[in-house]
Amino acid sequence: MRISESELRDFSIFAEELAEAAGHVISPYFRTSIAVEDKGGDSFDPVTLADRAAERTMREMISRRYPQHGIHGEEEGYLPGASPFTWVLDPIDGTRAFISGLPLWGTLIALNDGEQPCLGVMNQPYTDEQFLGTPEGAWLNGRPIKARSCPTLASAHVSCTSPQVFETPAQLAAFGRVAERARLVRYGGDCYAYCMLACGYVDAVIEAGLKPYDIQALMPIIQSAGGIVSTWDGGDPQHGGAIIACGDRRLHAEILNHLRERAPLT
Amino acid sequence: MRISESELRDFSIFAEELAEAAGHVISPYFRTSIAVEDKGGDSFDPVTLADRAAERTMREMISRRYPQHGIHGEEEGYLPGASPFTWVLDPIDGTRAFISGLPLWGTLIALNDGEQPCLGVMNQPYTDEQFLGTPEGAWLNGRPIKARSCPTLASAHVSCTSPQVFETPAQLAAFGRVAERARLVRYGGDCYAYCMLACGYVDAVIEAGLKPYDIQALMPIIQSAGGIVSTWDGGDPQHGGAIIACGDRRLHAEILNHLRERAPLT
Repeated sequence: MRISESELRDFSIFAEELAEAAGHVISPYFRTSIAVEDKGGDSFDPVTLADRAAERTMREMISRRYPQHGIHGEEEGYLPGASPFTWVLDPIDGTRAFISGLPLWGTLIALNDGEQPCLGVMNQPYTDEQFLGTPEGAWLNGRPIKARSCPTLASAHVSCTSPQVFETPAQLAAFGRVAERARLVRYGGDCYAYCMLACGYVDAVIEAGLKPYDIQALMPIIQSAGGIVSTWDGGDPQHGGAIIACGDRRLHAEILNHLRERAPLT
Repeated sequence: MRISESELRDFSIFAEELAEAAGHVISPYFRTSIAVEDKGGDSFDPVTLADRAAERTMREMISRRYPQHGIHGEEEGYLPGASPFTWVLDPIDGTRAFISGLPLWGTLIALNDGEQPCLGVMNQPYTDEQFLGTPEGAWLNGRPIKARSCPTLASAHVSCTSPQVFETPAQLAAFGRVAERARLVRYGGDCYAYCMLACGYVDAVIEAGLKPYDIQALMPIIQSAGGIVSTWDGGDPQHGGAIIACGDRRLHAEILNHLRERAPLT
């Protein structure tokens, strides 16, 4: 969908306002002792009061400002809108980092134009860092950022939040084939790792089991910094699943080959 | 060795001066593109110019101020002193975090009195956080910190820098026995994770392959915050190796049992 420059500017300013408001709600909860609720299910999935309060704040702001827009949030699900635009929200991506006191979590905010995310913000209030991606560019706190070139896996720094993100033995084996060929593998980045890729400090992020709100805000940041993000089979990443982001298209092609090797990925 | 209150105060102030000086040397290199040298060996072990420059700065400051003290640094090795005191230095602990742009690395400074580390500093200049531990207490930027109680592994949040730190299949299996019983496992903390344990946000840190300069500065911080740190067999951790730190002694005892189970750990 085609957006005018002035619309894009308004949306960007509003997205940053959302991020700041969420940051104000979340920050008092960071590094305090609060009850960690368990959403249930097999794996531990912590949700904090901060998560819920921040999503509520953002939903209210969106409903007031753009009542015709849809909202898709981690906590309260999907509220369809009358326009094609949908705000895709993850108040605290990286809840394990959050409850461990580590400043690697972030508030993720995407605006999807009905076809794809056209704008993304990642906000880390403790380090006071805000990453923004639009069709016009990618920035950290207003300074342009750029992914670095890295043509081969042998020279690549690969990041992955945890070996636990892989949902099947085949996925873990596929990641293993990449990891054993990489120059360096580092665990534990959450959304922050994708932003470091967009800044040129990490060459690839490989994960699985992502939700749409885990990746949509990061897509414009990565893409407008010169990077590429897709599913493991090279498809559209906006619906989540098994995701790979690279700063260099050649590296992306090489890693896709290793991921596809032998066994099916599902 | 018995240290007077005024000596301890002088040593603490000086350790903080060392940390700040190192921070000033290192910070300009953080998030810049610099050549990453490879020390060689089987695994990738990045060393930056910052690492070397910061150790040189600290060594010069120590030699001027306490010419009789020994110095043991990651980069330039051990320089014995005429007194029992030795400064134990790791300018950048968490080099993978450092080169990935993540603010989880830290400068580690311990003062060993000839028997044990009596004072430790962990300094993270990007987040402007300085952790200090002495026999008199533990602090983050001057505010007292305290490990939390967590009596059982089933309710524990466990941190580990990477599954790659384990040096043998037996070690990895032993960690696996702990991980599968923990409430939550998070990877990728480096020295920062031990400090979050001392602050009460993480219950256990389990690692292996540590050097003396990786752990000595963290010992007084953990211990004076009410935590416990040992080797996997319950011994003195100051020489490094396979290390476990816990915020609660009951948790420490339970995890040691799981680590010891079945196979020998070496």
